[in-house]
Formats: sequence, C-alpha cells, structure tokens
Amino acid sequence: MTTHVILVARAFGAKGVYIEGKDEKMVKSILKVIDSWGGSSYFLVKEIENGKSIVNEWKEKGGTIIHLTMYGININDFQDRFEKIKYPLLIIVGAEKVEGWYYHNADYNIAIGNQPHSEVAALAIFLDRIYKGRELYMEFEDAKIKILPQKAGKKVIRSG
Amino acid sequence: MTTHVILVARAFGAKGVYIEGKDEKMVKSILKVIDSWGGSSYFLVKEIENGKSIVNEWKEKGGTIIHLTMYGININDFQDRFEKIKYPLLIIVGAEKVEGWYYHNADYNIAIGNQPHSEVAALAIFLDRIYKGRELYMEFEDAKIKILPQKAGKKVIRSG
Repeated sequence: MTTHVILVARAFGAKGVYIEGKDEKMVKSILKVIDSWGGSSYFLVKEIENGKSIVNEWKEKGGTIIHLTMYGININDFQDRFEKIKYPLLIIVGAEKVEGWYYHNADYNIAIGNQPHSEVAALAIFLDRIYKGRELYMEFEDAKIKILPQKAGKKVIRSG
Repeated sequence: MTTHVILVARAFGAKGVYIEGKDEKMVKSILKVIDSWGGSSYFLVKEIENGKSIVNEWKEKGGTIIHLTMYGININDFQDRFEKIKYPLLIIVGAEKVEGWYYHNADYNIAIGNQPHSEVAALAIFLDRIYKGRELYMEFEDAKIKILPQKAGKKVIRSG
C-alpha cells in the first residue's frame, strides 16, 4: 500500500515523501520507477524514525500541516480556503491507526468524504483538488519512458 | 489492494463491484464494512470467473465500458464528454497486466494522467470527476456508524 501512496505522491505533484519506518525493498522499487519514469532530480524519498519531528520542523519553517482522515472536515467544505493556506504543505496519511497527537498537531484535519476507503485515494483526491487537475499533465524531463496517449492499445517512447 | 478498490467504489458512488477471481476472506471483510457503514440495500459485491462475459452483457444492455489505464486518453481531455456518455457505466480497473482484449473492447480507455500510480487512485479520481465531488456528501441510511466531522479528534454515532 505504501508503494501506491508514494507513486500517487509522485504522479500527482508532490515534491517527495517521508516514510515512517524502514523498508529497503519497497524504497528500491520506488527508486527504480523514478529512474525510469522521471523525477530523480527533485522527488525526495526519505525513511524516518518518527514523523513528529518532521511535523515540528515543518511548523518552524512556517509551512502548513494537513492530516487526511475520514474523521475530519469534508474537503468540499474546505475548498475555498485552499488559496489562503501557507505553503509548503506537509500532508499526513496513515495506514492503520494514526496517533491522536497528529490530529491535535495538524493545522487541518481534512476528510475526503466521511467514509472508510483508502489513504491512496485520499491523497490522490487532495492533490487533484489543490492542483485543479493540472497535475495530470505533468511531464518529467528526465523520464526514460514516456506514454503517447492512445484511444486503444499502448504506445511508449523509450530513451536513455 | 482489491479491498481498497472496493471501499473506494462504495465510498465514491459506484453501485457495486464485479471481482474476477475468488477471495472469501476479502469479500467477508468488505461485507462487514458495508454492514457497519451502510450500503447493504444496493451495493453489489459479486465474484466472477471471467470479466469478458460481464463486458459483453453490459454492451448488450446499452451501457458504456470505461477502462482506466495510464496508456489511455488523459481524463482532462475527456471531461467535456462525460455528459454525453450513456449510463450505466462499467469501469474496468486492473491490478497487474490487463489483457489487450479489454483495451479493444472498452468504449473508452481513459488515463488519470499518463504516469504509473494506482488503480485505487484512478478509480477515486474518475468517480470524483463524474460526480463532481458530490459523492463525498453521500450518506448511507442503513449505516450503524456515522462520523460527525471534527476539526480535531474523532466523533462517531453508533446505532443498531
């Protein structure tokens, strides 16, 4: 699941990910995707021991902490505030149980609907909303593989 | 992963899912979520042997077959046609390799951006776009658990 979250982060316009815990095999597979499809020059993949220190650092930098949780405020009711929130954004998504600390230290707890579904979907929808869909036109200059969109079938250009 | 796809289908407004293959444990866990959070009256969860027969039946019924694939046409370039496509929609998402047959028998091959990421995210974005975000206000009459959105922390009403 974490792999899908990270691939969504990259494909939907995030600048990188902090991953709590250690998973060498997963990081290796991610770096392979980035090497082929692009993003090596800027997309950060960092394993960390404790997310709380990152949250505190982020606050000191003057950024905004967004926690995506089904218990939060519906994103539809938050949409008009997107323009005013201070960047950079740190977006927190949790797999299983997320500690209460994050709820109380996030600037905003935002729900992608108040129903159980998936942190993968939650991150995708949030990024799609803040970038207003433009992220889906992203091109990666250092990509070795590029897709030529097709009505049916597959067309890919390979370089490098 | 299939569990996440199904939870997204339910939470984002689909009427049900056909799952190719057999996975009793997974179906049981899904039905448990539906029993608690609602949707039992209409949300179909059906295991099937072969997706192709469903596609053919769907066509005979006059519905539209949408295949979500990174090789397809960017959803942003398809958006204006949403109003004209004939319902009901059968949306095909594949985990690993999807057979060429589906590419050539779908009415539309649509890409949620032409980058590798996740079928979970692809389905969520597609449904969010066709329902214009309204699906995130969905309420389930038969729900035994309901969330009261909170700025911080969790508030849930349990009934039945």
